[in-house]
Amino acid sequence: MSSRRIRIDLAYDGTDFEGFQLQPRGRTVQGVVEAVLERLAGGRPVRLRAASRTDSGVHARKQVVDGRIETSLDDHALERGLEALLPRDVSAVRVATVPDSFHSMHHAIAKTYRFRMDLSRHGDPLIARYAVHHRGRFDPELVERGLRLLVGRRDFTGFADSRCRVRERVRCLDRAEWAPLEDAGGCFVFRADGFLTYMVRNMVGTLLEIGRGKRAVEAIAEILETRDRRLAAATAPARGLCLWDVEYASDGPVDAPTVRH
Amino acid sequence: MSSRRIRIDLAYDGTDFEGFQLQPRGRTVQGVVEAVLERLAGGRPVRLRAASRTDSGVHARKQVVDGRIETSLDDHALERGLEALLPRDVSAVRVATVPDSFHSMHHAIAKTYRFRMDLSRHGDPLIARYAVHHRGRFDPELVERGLRLLVGRRDFTGFADSRCRVRERVRCLDRAEWAPLEDAGGCFVFRADGFLTYMVRNMVGTLLEIGRGKRAVEAIAEILETRDRRLAAATAPARGLCLWDVEYASDGPVDAPTVRH
Repeated sequence: MSSRRIRIDLAYDGTDFEGFQLQPRGRTVQGVVEAVLERLAGGRPVRLRAASRTDSGVHARKQVVDGRIETSLDDHALERGLEALLPRDVSAVRVATVPDSFHSMHHAIAKTYRFRMDLSRHGDPLIARYAVHHRGRFDPELVERGLRLLVGRRDFTGFADSRCRVRERVRCLDRAEWAPLEDAGGCFVFRADGFLTYMVRNMVGTLLEIGRGKRAVEAIAEILETRDRRLAAATAPARGLCLWDVEYASDGPVDAPTVRH
Repeated sequence: MSSRRIRIDLAYDGTDFEGFQLQPRGRTVQGVVEAVLERLAGGRPVRLRAASRTDSGVHARKQVVDGRIETSLDDHALERGLEALLPRDVSAVRVATVPDSFHSMHHAIAKTYRFRMDLSRHGDPLIARYAVHHRGRFDPELVERGLRLLVGRRDFTGFADSRCRVRERVRCLDRAEWAPLEDAGGCFVFRADGFLTYMVRNMVGTLLEIGRGKRAVEAIAEILETRDRRLAAATAPARGLCLWDVEYASDGPVDAPTVRH
Protein backbone atom coordinates (compact mmCIF):
# COMPACT_ATOMS: atom_id res chain seq x y z
CA MET A 1 0.00 0.00 0.00
CA SER A 2 1.46 3.29 -1.07
CA SER A 3 1.62 6.45 0.94
CA ARG A 4 0.94 9.74 -0.80
CA ARG A 5 0.19 13.39 -0.11
CA ILE A 6 -3.33 14.58 -0.77
CA ARG A 7 -4.82 18.03 -0.90
CA ILE A 8 -8.42 18.51 0.24
CA ASP A 9 -10.49 21.63 -0.43
CA LEU A 10 -12.91 22.02 2.46
CA ALA A 11 -16.00 24.13 3.12
CA TYR A 12 -17.49 24.47 6.56
CA ASP A 13 -19.98 26.28 8.76
CA GLY A 14 -17.74 27.36 11.63
CA THR A 15 -20.54 28.00 14.13
CA ASP A 16 -20.26 24.71 15.97
CA PHE A 17 -16.47 24.33 15.74
CA GLU A 18 -13.82 25.64 18.12
CA GLY A 19 -11.87 26.81 15.08
CA PHE A 20 -9.83 24.81 12.59
CA GLN A 21 -6.87 23.74 14.68
CA LEU A 22 -6.82 20.60 16.80
CA GLN A 23 -7.23 21.23 20.50
CA PRO A 24 -7.11 19.09 23.60
CA ARG A 25 -10.80 19.78 24.13
CA GLY A 26 -13.53 20.97 21.83
CA ARG A 27 -14.78 20.02 18.38
CA THR A 28 -12.44 21.33 15.68
CA VAL A 29 -12.51 21.06 11.88
CA GLN A 30 -9.08 19.45 11.88
CA GLY A 31 -10.17 16.92 14.51
CA VAL A 32 -13.34 15.96 12.65
CA VAL A 33 -11.69 15.62 9.22
CA GLU A 34 -8.63 13.76 10.55
CA ALA A 35 -10.88 11.27 12.36
CA VAL A 36 -12.78 10.50 9.14
CA LEU A 37 -9.55 10.15 7.12
CA GLU A 38 -8.11 7.82 9.75
CA ARG A 39 -11.21 5.67 9.43
CA LEU A 40 -10.90 5.66 5.63
CA ALA A 41 -7.20 4.74 5.96
CA GLY A 42 -8.02 1.68 8.04
CA GLY A 43 -7.01 3.20 11.35
CA ARG A 44 -3.70 4.76 10.26
CA PRO A 45 -3.64 8.32 11.63
CA VAL A 46 -3.47 11.25 9.22
CA ARG A 47 -2.13 14.66 10.25
CA LEU A 48 -3.37 17.66 8.29
CA ARG A 49 -1.96 21.13 7.84
CA ALA A 50 -4.09 24.00 6.55
CA ALA A 51 -3.73 27.15 4.48
CA SER A 52 -5.28 29.10 7.31
CA ARG A 53 -5.98 28.28 10.94
CA THR A 54 -9.40 29.87 11.07
CA ASP A 55 -10.58 30.96 14.51
CA SER A 56 -13.53 29.66 16.45
CA GLY A 57 -16.80 30.53 14.68
CA VAL A 58 -15.16 31.51 11.37
CA HIS A 59 -16.56 29.85 8.24
CA ALA A 60 -14.87 28.64 5.07
CA ARG A 61 -16.12 28.46 1.54
CA LYS A 62 -12.70 27.22 0.50
CA GLN A 63 -10.08 26.10 2.97
CA VAL A 64 -7.18 24.03 1.65
CA VAL A 65 -5.52 21.30 3.72
CA ASP A 66 -2.92 18.65 2.93
CA GLY A 67 -1.51 15.55 4.57
CA ARG A 68 0.12 12.19 3.92
CA ILE A 69 -2.19 9.21 3.80
CA GLU A 70 -1.49 5.50 3.44
CA THR A 71 -4.40 3.87 1.68
CA SER A 72 -5.36 1.88 -1.37
CA LEU A 73 -8.32 4.19 -1.99
CA ASP A 74 -7.88 6.56 -4.93
CA ASP A 75 -8.80 10.25 -4.79
CA HIS A 76 -12.32 9.68 -6.03
CA ALA A 77 -12.99 6.95 -3.47
CA LEU A 78 -11.62 9.19 -0.71
CA GLU A 79 -13.91 11.97 -1.91
CA ARG A 80 -16.93 9.69 -1.74
CA GLY A 81 -15.85 8.37 1.64
CA LEU A 82 -15.55 11.89 3.03
CA GLU A 83 -18.93 12.77 1.57
CA ALA A 84 -20.49 9.79 3.31
CA LEU A 85 -18.79 10.19 6.69
CA LEU A 86 -18.37 13.92 7.29
CA PRO A 87 -21.08 15.72 9.29
CA ARG A 88 -23.35 18.17 7.52
CA ASP A 89 -21.40 21.27 8.60
CA VAL A 90 -18.16 20.34 6.85
CA SER A 91 -17.75 19.16 3.30
CA ALA A 92 -14.83 18.01 1.13
CA VAL A 93 -15.28 19.81 -2.15
CA ARG A 94 -12.29 18.17 -3.85
CA VAL A 95 -9.58 15.60 -3.13
CA ALA A 96 -6.39 15.49 -5.24
CA THR A 97 -3.05 13.75 -5.01
CA VAL A 98 -0.27 16.36 -4.95
CA PRO A 99 3.54 16.23 -5.03
CA ASP A 100 4.98 15.48 -1.61
CA SER A 101 6.56 18.95 -1.69
CA PHE A 102 3.12 20.65 -1.65
CA HIS A 103 2.42 22.72 1.47
CA SER A 104 -1.05 24.21 1.78
CA MET A 105 0.08 27.16 3.89
CA HIS A 106 3.55 27.95 2.54
CA HIS A 107 2.61 27.63 -1.11
CA ALA A 108 -0.52 29.77 -0.97
CA ILE A 109 0.09 32.91 -2.98
CA ALA A 110 -3.11 34.71 -1.98
CA LYS A 111 -6.05 34.33 0.37
CA THR A 112 -9.39 36.04 0.21
CA TYR A 113 -11.60 36.64 3.21
CA ARG A 114 -14.99 38.13 3.16
CA PHE A 115 -16.89 39.59 6.10
CA ARG A 116 -20.65 39.76 5.76
CA MET A 117 -22.85 42.50 7.21
CA ASP A 118 -26.60 42.52 7.74
CA LEU A 119 -27.72 46.14 7.40
CA SER A 120 -31.44 45.41 7.58
CA ARG A 121 -33.35 47.29 10.24
CA HIS A 122 -34.38 44.29 12.29
CA GLY A 123 -31.76 41.68 11.56
CA ASP A 124 -32.51 38.79 9.22
CA PRO A 125 -32.66 35.52 11.20
CA LEU A 126 -32.02 33.55 8.01
CA ILE A 127 -28.47 34.92 7.72
CA ALA A 128 -27.74 35.46 11.42
CA ARG A 129 -25.16 32.65 11.54
CA TYR A 130 -23.13 34.18 8.71
CA ALA A 131 -23.46 37.92 9.08
CA VAL A 132 -23.15 40.58 11.74
CA HIS A 133 -26.20 42.76 12.21
CA HIS A 134 -25.24 46.43 12.26
CA ARG A 135 -27.67 48.86 13.85
CA GLY A 136 -27.61 52.51 12.99
CA ARG A 137 -25.57 54.49 10.53
CA PHE A 138 -23.45 52.87 7.83
CA ASP A 139 -22.07 55.26 5.24
CA PRO A 140 -20.60 53.23 2.36
CA GLU A 141 -18.70 56.24 1.06
CA LEU A 142 -16.82 56.74 4.33
CA VAL A 143 -16.17 52.99 4.51
CA GLU A 144 -14.77 52.96 0.99
CA ARG A 145 -12.45 55.87 1.75
CA GLY A 146 -11.16 53.91 4.74
CA LEU A 147 -10.72 50.77 2.62
CA ARG A 148 -8.60 52.63 0.08
CA LEU A 149 -6.14 53.60 2.82
CA LEU A 150 -5.62 49.92 3.67
CA VAL A 151 -4.64 48.71 0.21
CA GLY A 152 -0.92 48.26 -0.39
CA ARG A 153 2.20 46.65 1.01
CA ARG A 154 2.12 47.69 4.65
CA ASP A 155 2.99 46.73 8.20
CA PHE A 156 -0.38 45.65 9.65
CA THR A 157 0.80 45.33 13.28
CA GLY A 158 -1.79 47.90 14.38
CA PHE A 159 -4.58 45.58 13.22
CA ALA A 160 -3.06 42.36 14.59
CA ASP A 161 -4.02 40.77 17.87
CA SER A 162 -1.53 40.79 20.71
CA ARG A 163 -1.65 36.96 20.45
CA CYS A 164 -0.11 37.20 16.98
CA ARG A 165 3.33 35.64 17.20
CA VAL A 166 4.79 36.11 13.73
CA ARG A 167 7.65 38.60 13.53
CA GLU A 168 7.23 39.72 9.97
CA ARG A 169 4.08 41.88 9.94
CA VAL A 170 4.28 43.29 6.43
CA ARG A 171 1.53 42.03 4.14
CA CYS A 172 0.50 42.95 0.65
CA LEU A 173 -3.24 43.70 0.67
CA ASP A 174 -4.22 44.05 -2.98
CA ARG A 175 -7.99 44.07 -2.56
CA ALA A 176 -10.09 45.80 0.09
CA GLU A 177 -13.65 46.42 -1.02
CA TRP A 178 -17.18 46.90 0.14
CA ALA A 179 -19.58 44.86 -2.01
CA PRO A 180 -23.29 45.50 -1.47
CA LEU A 181 -25.47 42.39 -1.69
CA GLU A 182 -29.18 42.18 -2.26
CA ASP A 183 -31.28 42.08 0.95
CA ALA A 184 -30.01 45.17 2.71
CA GLY A 185 -26.51 43.97 3.35
CA GLY A 186 -23.12 43.49 1.88
CA CYS A 187 -19.68 42.22 2.55
CA PHE A 188 -16.13 43.39 2.98
CA VAL A 189 -13.73 41.56 0.66
CA PHE A 190 -10.01 41.41 1.46
CA ARG A 191 -7.33 39.69 -0.61
CA ALA A 192 -3.70 39.51 0.49
CA ASP A 193 -0.63 37.29 0.39
CA GLY A 194 -1.28 36.59 4.05
CA PHE A 195 -3.19 37.85 7.09
CA LEU A 196 -2.21 38.38 10.74
CA THR A 197 -4.26 37.06 13.67
CA TYR A 198 -7.60 38.93 13.90
CA MET A 199 -6.43 41.31 11.15
CA VAL A 200 -9.65 41.18 9.10
CA ARG A 201 -11.92 41.39 12.15
CA ASN A 202 -9.95 44.35 13.55
CA MET A 203 -10.00 46.18 10.21
CA VAL A 204 -13.76 45.59 9.97
CA GLY A 205 -14.33 46.80 13.54
CA THR A 206 -12.54 50.06 12.75
CA LEU A 207 -14.25 50.47 9.36
CA LEU A 208 -17.65 50.09 11.03
CA GLU A 209 -16.86 52.94 13.41
CA ILE A 210 -15.74 55.02 10.43
CA GLY A 211 -18.97 54.19 8.58
CA ARG A 212 -20.93 55.24 11.65
CA GLY A 213 -19.19 58.61 11.60
CA LYS A 214 -17.74 57.97 15.07
CA ARG A 215 -14.18 57.98 13.88
CA ALA A 216 -12.33 59.86 11.14
CA VAL A 217 -11.27 58.04 7.98
CA GLU A 218 -7.71 59.09 8.79
CA ALA A 219 -7.73 56.77 11.83
CA ILE A 220 -6.75 54.01 9.41
CA ALA A 221 -3.56 55.79 8.39
CA GLU A 222 -2.75 56.53 12.02
CA ILE A 223 -3.17 52.90 13.11
CA LEU A 224 -0.97 51.74 10.23
CA GLU A 225 1.72 54.33 10.98
CA THR A 226 1.83 54.01 14.75
CA ARG A 227 1.26 50.23 14.67
CA ASP A 228 -0.66 50.78 17.90
CA ARG A 229 -3.37 48.15 18.33
CA ARG A 230 -5.01 50.20 21.08
CA LEU A 231 -6.04 52.78 18.48
CA ALA A 232 -8.11 50.26 16.50
CA ALA A 233 -11.72 49.56 17.37
CA ALA A 234 -13.12 46.40 18.96
CA THR A 235 -12.68 43.16 17.02
CA ALA A 236 -15.75 42.35 14.89
CA PRO A 237 -17.52 39.06 15.75
CA ALA A 238 -16.22 35.85 14.17
CA ARG A 239 -19.50 34.76 12.63
CA GLY A 240 -19.34 37.38 9.85
CA LEU A 241 -15.99 36.08 8.63
CA CYS A 242 -15.51 33.49 5.90
CA LEU A 243 -12.31 32.19 4.32
CA TRP A 244 -13.42 32.64 0.74
CA ASP A 245 -10.54 31.48 -1.41
CA VAL A 246 -6.95 30.27 -1.28
CA GLU A 247 -4.89 30.55 -4.45
CA TYR A 248 -1.82 28.58 -5.56
CA ALA A 249 0.49 29.23 -8.48
CA SER A 250 0.10 25.54 -9.37
CA ASP A 251 -3.67 26.01 -9.86
CA GLY A 252 -2.91 28.19 -12.86
CA PRO A 253 -4.48 31.54 -13.62
CA VAL A 254 -7.79 32.05 -11.91
CA ASP A 255 -10.50 34.62 -12.22
CA ALA A 256 -10.86 37.09 -9.43
CA PRO A 257 -13.20 35.49 -6.91
CA THR A 258 -16.70 36.80 -7.33
CA VAL A 259 -18.86 37.84 -4.48
CA ARG A 260 -21.47 35.27 -3.77
CA HIS A 261 -24.55 35.94 -1.73
CA MET B 1 -54.73 52.09 28.61
CA SER B 2 -56.28 51.09 25.34
CA SER B 3 -56.43 47.66 23.85
CA ARG B 4 -55.85 47.25 20.13
CA ARG B 5 -55.15 44.64 17.48
CA ILE B 6 -51.66 44.57 16.03
CA ARG B 7 -50.23 42.76 13.05
CA ILE B 8 -46.61 41.60 13.20
CA ASP B 9 -44.61 40.44 10.18
CA LEU B 10 -42.12 37.85 11.40
CA ALA B 11 -39.04 36.17 9.94
CA TYR B 12 -37.45 33.13 11.54
CA ASP B 13 -34.95 30.34 11.19
CA GLY B 14 -37.12 27.32 11.98
CA THR B 15 -34.25 24.93 12.76
CA ASP B 16 -34.44 25.24 16.53
CA PHE B 17 -38.22 25.59 16.82
CA GLU B 18 -40.84 22.86 17.14
CA GLY B 19 -42.87 24.69 14.54
CA PHE B 20 -44.97 27.85 14.85
CA GLN B 21 -47.84 26.68 16.98
CA LEU B 22 -47.78 26.71 20.77
CA GLN B 23 -47.28 23.28 22.31
CA PRO B 24 -47.29 21.90 25.82
CA ARG B 25 -43.60 21.13 25.45
CA GLY B 26 -40.94 22.40 23.11
CA ARG B 27 -39.79 25.81 21.91
CA THR B 28 -42.21 27.29 19.39
CA VAL B 29 -42.23 30.58 17.48
CA GLN B 30 -45.63 31.43 18.92
CA GLY B 31 -44.43 30.70 22.45
CA VAL B 32 -41.29 32.82 22.11
CA VAL B 33 -43.04 35.82 20.52
CA GLU B 34 -46.02 35.73 22.89
CA ALA B 35 -43.69 35.65 25.90
CA VAL B 36 -41.86 38.77 24.67
CA LEU B 37 -45.14 40.59 23.93
CA GLU B 38 -46.47 39.70 27.38
CA ARG B 39 -43.35 41.24 28.89
CA LEU B 40 -43.77 44.37 26.77
CA ALA B 41 -47.44 44.57 27.83
CA GLY B 42 -46.52 44.58 31.50
CA GLY B 43 -47.46 40.96 32.13
CA ARG B 44 -50.81 40.97 30.32
CA PRO B 45 -50.92 37.83 28.15
CA VAL B 46 -51.18 38.16 24.36
CA ARG B 47 -52.56 35.40 22.17
CA LEU B 48 -51.42 35.35 18.55
CA ARG B 49 -52.90 33.75 15.46
CA ALA B 50 -50.85 33.24 12.31
CA ALA B 51 -51.33 33.18 8.56
CA SER B 52 -49.72 29.75 8.46
CA ARG B 53 -48.90 27.23 11.17
CA THR B 54 -45.51 26.28 9.82
CA ASP B 55 -44.25 22.82 10.81
CA SER B 56 -41.23 21.98 12.89
CA GLY B 57 -38.04 23.01 11.09
CA VAL B 58 -39.77 25.18 8.46
CA HIS B 59 -38.42 28.72 8.06
CA ALA B 60 -40.19 31.99 7.33
CA ARG B 61 -39.04 35.03 5.47
CA LYS B 62 -42.47 36.54 6.00
CA GLN B 63 -45.00 35.10 8.38
CA VAL B 64 -47.89 37.32 9.45
CA VAL B 65 -49.45 37.12 12.92
CA ASP B 66 -52.01 39.22 14.74
CA GLY B 67 -53.33 39.58 18.27
CA ARG B 68 -54.93 41.98 20.74
CA ILE B 69 -52.57 43.79 23.05
CA GLU B 70 -53.24 46.16 25.95
CA THR B 71 -50.34 48.56 26.23
CA SER B 72 -49.44 52.24 26.16
CA LEU B 73 -46.53 51.48 23.80
CA ASP B 74 -47.08 52.59 20.22
CA ASP B 75 -46.23 50.41 17.20
CA HIS B 76 -42.74 51.80 16.88
CA ALA B 77 -41.96 51.21 20.56
CA LEU B 78 -43.28 47.65 20.29
CA GLU B 79 -41.07 47.11 17.25
CA ARG B 80 -38.01 48.30 19.15
CA GLY B 81 -38.97 46.22 22.17
CA LEU B 82 -39.30 43.09 20.04
CA GLU B 83 -35.97 43.85 18.38
CA ALA B 84 -34.31 44.10 21.79
CA LEU B 85 -35.92 41.05 23.40
CA LEU B 86 -36.39 38.45 20.66
CA PRO B 87 -33.66 35.81 20.20
CA ARG B 88 -31.47 35.95 17.11
CA ASP B 89 -33.45 33.29 15.22
CA VAL B 90 -36.72 35.23 15.11
CA SER B 91 -37.23 38.82 14.11
CA ALA B 92 -40.17 41.22 13.92
CA VAL B 93 -39.84 42.94 10.58
CA ARG B 94 -42.83 45.23 11.08
CA VAL B 95 -45.50 46.05 13.68
CA ALA B 96 -48.72 47.81 12.69
CA THR B 97 -52.03 48.56 14.35
CA VAL B 98 -54.86 47.00 12.30
CA PRO B 99 -58.67 47.10 12.49
CA ASP B 100 -60.00 44.64 15.05
CA SER B 101 -61.62 42.75 12.18
CA PHE B 102 -58.22 41.82 10.69
CA HIS B 103 -57.46 38.09 10.70
CA SER B 104 -54.00 37.04 9.55
CA MET B 105 -55.15 33.63 8.32
CA HIS B 106 -58.67 34.27 7.00
CA HIS B 107 -57.81 37.48 5.20
CA ALA B 108 -54.71 36.21 3.42
CA ILE B 109 -55.43 36.09 -0.31
CA ALA B 110 -52.22 34.30 -1.31
CA LYS B 111 -49.22 32.60 0.23
CA THR B 112 -45.92 31.81 -1.37
CA TYR B 113 -43.64 29.01 -0.25
CA ARG B 114 -40.26 28.26 -1.61
CA PHE B 115 -38.31 25.03 -1.23
CA ARG B 116 -34.58 25.28 -1.66
CA MET B 117 -32.38 22.58 -3.18
CA ASP B 118 -28.60 22.18 -3.02
CA LEU B 119 -27.56 20.44 -6.23
CA SER B 120 -23.81 20.76 -5.63
CA ARG B 121 -21.85 17.54 -5.74
CA HIS B 122 -20.72 17.54 -2.13
CA GLY B 123 -23.34 19.58 -0.32
CA ASP B 124 -22.60 23.15 0.72
CA PRO B 125 -22.33 23.33 4.53
CA LEU B 126 -23.05 27.07 4.40
CA ILE B 127 -26.63 26.49 3.20
CA ALA B 128 -27.25 23.11 4.86
CA ARG B 129 -29.78 24.53 7.33
CA TYR B 130 -31.93 25.99 4.55
CA ALA B 131 -31.63 23.59 1.64
CA VAL B 132 -31.92 19.89 0.93
CA HIS B 133 -28.88 18.32 -0.70
CA HIS B 134 -29.90 16.22 -3.68
CA ARG B 135 -27.46 13.58 -4.87
CA GLY B 136 -27.60 12.24 -8.39
CA ARG B 137 -29.73 13.14 -11.34
CA PHE B 138 -31.91 16.25 -11.45
CA ASP B 139 -33.40 17.05 -14.84
CA PRO B 140 -34.92 20.56 -14.72
CA GLU B 141 -36.89 19.93 -17.89
CA LEU B 142 -38.70 16.91 -16.43
CA VAL B 143 -39.27 18.86 -13.20
CA GLU B 144 -40.78 21.77 -15.10
CA ARG B 145 -43.11 19.49 -17.01
CA GLY B 146 -44.29 18.09 -13.68
CA LEU B 147 -44.75 21.60 -12.26
CA ARG B 148 -46.96 22.62 -15.17
CA LEU B 149 -49.36 19.77 -14.36
CA LEU B 150 -49.80 21.13 -10.83
CA VAL B 151 -50.87 24.66 -11.75
CA GLY B 152 -54.57 25.36 -11.60
CA ARG B 153 -57.65 25.07 -9.42
CA ARG B 154 -57.49 21.48 -8.23
CA ASP B 155 -58.24 19.06 -5.42
CA PHE B 156 -54.83 18.51 -3.82
CA THR B 157 -55.89 15.67 -1.48
CA GLY B 158 -53.32 13.35 -3.07
CA PHE B 159 -50.53 15.63 -1.87
CA ALA B 160 -51.97 16.29 1.61
CA ASP B 161 -50.88 14.49 4.72
CA SER B 162 -53.31 12.09 6.39
CA ARG B 163 -53.12 14.48 9.40
CA CYS B 164 -54.76 17.17 7.29
CA ARG B 165 -58.17 17.83 8.81
CA VAL B 166 -59.72 20.40 6.50
CA ARG B 167 -62.64 19.17 4.43
CA GLU B 168 -62.33 21.48 1.48
CA ARG B 169 -59.22 20.32 -0.40
CA VAL B 170 -59.53 22.43 -3.54
CA ARG B 171 -56.81 25.08 -3.84
CA CYS B 172 -55.89 27.46 -6.58
CA LEU B 173 -52.17 27.07 -7.29
CA ASP B 174 -51.28 29.91 -9.64
CA ARG B 175 -47.52 29.59 -9.55
CA ALA B 176 -45.37 26.44 -9.54
CA GLU B 177 -41.85 27.08 -10.79
CA TRP B 178 -38.30 25.89 -10.63
CA ALA B 179 -35.94 28.86 -10.20
CA PRO B 180 -32.23 28.09 -10.53
CA LEU B 181 -30.01 30.05 -8.14
CA GLU B 182 -26.31 30.71 -8.37
CA ASP B 183 -24.13 28.13 -6.56
CA ALA B 184 -25.39 24.93 -8.10
CA GLY B 185 -28.84 25.00 -6.66
CA GLY B 186 -32.26 26.45 -6.99
CA CYS B 187 -35.66 26.55 -5.47
CA PHE B 188 -39.21 25.50 -6.10
CA VAL B 189 -41.65 28.40 -5.82
CA PHE B 190 -45.35 27.79 -5.13
CA ARG B 191 -48.05 30.41 -4.79
CA ALA B 192 -51.66 29.57 -3.92
CA ASP B 193 -54.68 30.85 -2.07
CA GLY B 194 -53.91 28.22 0.55
CA PHE B 195 -51.96 25.03 1.15
CA LEU B 196 -52.85 21.70 2.77
CA THR B 197 -50.71 20.05 5.44
CA TYR B 198 -47.39 18.83 3.94
CA MET B 199 -48.67 19.76 0.47
CA VAL B 200 -45.50 21.56 -0.66
CA ARG B 201 -43.16 18.95 0.80
CA ASN B 202 -45.13 16.13 -0.80
CA MET B 203 -45.20 17.86 -4.20
CA VAL B 204 -41.43 18.44 -3.95
CA GLY B 205 -40.78 14.81 -2.98
CA THR B 206 -42.66 13.62 -6.06
CA LEU B 207 -41.03 16.22 -8.35
CA LEU B 208 -37.58 15.09 -7.18
CA GLU B 209 -38.37 11.52 -8.20
CA ILE B 210 -39.59 12.80 -11.56
CA GLY B 211 -36.40 14.84 -11.99
CA ARG B 212 -34.38 11.74 -11.20
CA GLY B 213 -36.18 9.87 -13.96
CA LYS B 214 -37.52 7.34 -11.47
CA ARG B 215 -41.12 8.27 -12.03
CA ALA B 216 -43.07 9.47 -15.05
CA VAL B 217 -44.17 13.09 -15.31
CA GLU B 218 -47.73 11.79 -15.63
CA ALA B 219 -47.60 10.56 -12.01
CA ILE B 220 -48.60 14.10 -11.04
CA ALA B 221 -51.84 13.90 -13.00
CA GLU B 222 -52.56 10.48 -11.57
CA ILE B 223 -52.05 11.61 -7.95
CA LEU B 224 -54.32 14.62 -8.56
CA GLU B 225 -57.01 12.52 -10.21
CA THR B 226 -57.02 9.57 -7.83
CA ARG B 227 -56.41 11.77 -4.74
CA ASP B 228 -54.43 8.80 -3.45
CA ARG B 229 -51.68 9.97 -1.09
CA ARG B 230 -49.99 6.58 -1.29
CA LEU B 231 -49.06 7.28 -4.91
CA ALA B 232 -47.01 10.36 -3.99
CA ALA B 233 -43.35 10.07 -3.03
CA ALA B 234 -41.86 10.54 0.43
CA THR B 235 -42.30 13.96 2.05
CA ALA B 236 -39.27 16.19 1.43
CA PRO B 237 -37.41 17.34 4.59
CA ALA B 238 -38.71 20.45 6.41
CA ARG B 239 -35.44 22.40 6.36
CA GLY B 240 -35.72 23.21 2.64
CA LEU B 241 -39.09 24.89 3.12
CA CYS B 242 -39.59 28.60 3.75
CA LEU B 243 -42.81 30.61 4.03
CA TRP B 244 -41.81 33.33 1.62
CA ASP B 245 -44.74 35.72 1.47
CA VAL B 246 -48.30 36.26 2.63
CA GLU B 247 -50.46 38.69 0.70
CA TYR B 248 -53.52 40.67 1.78
CA ALA B 249 -55.91 42.70 -0.32
CA SER B 250 -55.51 45.50 2.23
CA ASP B 251 -51.76 45.72 1.47
CA GLY B 252 -52.66 46.99 -2.00
CA PRO B 253 -51.19 45.75 -5.24
CA VAL B 254 -47.85 44.09 -4.81
CA ASP B 255 -45.21 42.94 -7.24
CA ALA B 256 -44.83 39.24 -7.71
CA PRO B 257 -42.39 38.09 -5.03
CA THR B 258 -38.92 37.77 -6.48
CA VAL B 259 -36.69 34.83 -5.79
CA ARG B 260 -34.01 35.71 -3.33
CA HIS B 261 -30.90 33.70 -2.85
